[in-house]
Amino acid sequence: MATFIDVHHGMTGITAEQLASAHQADLAIEASENVHFKQAWADPDSGTVYCLSEAPSVDAVQRVHERAGHKADEVHPVPLTV
Amino acid sequence: MATFIDVHHGMTGITAEQLASAHQADLAIEASENVHFKQAWADPDSGTVYCLSEAPSVDAVQRVHERAGHKADEVHPVPLTV
Repeated sequence: MATFIDVHHGMTGITAEQLASAHQADLAIEASENVHFKQAWADPDSGTVYCLSEAPSVDAVQRVHERAGHKADEVHPVPLTV
Repeated sequence: MATFIDVHHGMTGITAEQLASAHQADLAIEASENVHFKQAWADPDSGTVYCLSEAPSVDAVQRVHERAGHKADEVHPVPLTV
């Protein structure tokens, strides 16, 4: 397992309810890909959403997001953490 | 206080030691700006570093990073969290 940050652009105006709903959609199916979405942060003004996950691969992160209906624009492994 | 994610690009090849050193430089001066850098994640391959902070403003986050010698390329308030 490794740590990933993925980024969604174009989410201008996203609400707390929409963020929670999208996160729940990931949580509902993530186990089938051995992924866990730990946290997400959104900036409605710039339309940016950041998700922090533990997963076996970039592809596994993206598969969960795609199946949940919100493909990420970027998925970065972040092997270094402080 | 609010939550911010800032992003540094062009950090290709960053090491664990360099990330830790940069984070320590922020921690050493952050109190003077009423900022706290909680966590940072780095992707040495794409050269991207993400920092999570609590701070009074975008400008306060950027002032700490500038004074520590590593201005951020983007600083986003992230008022929504799940």
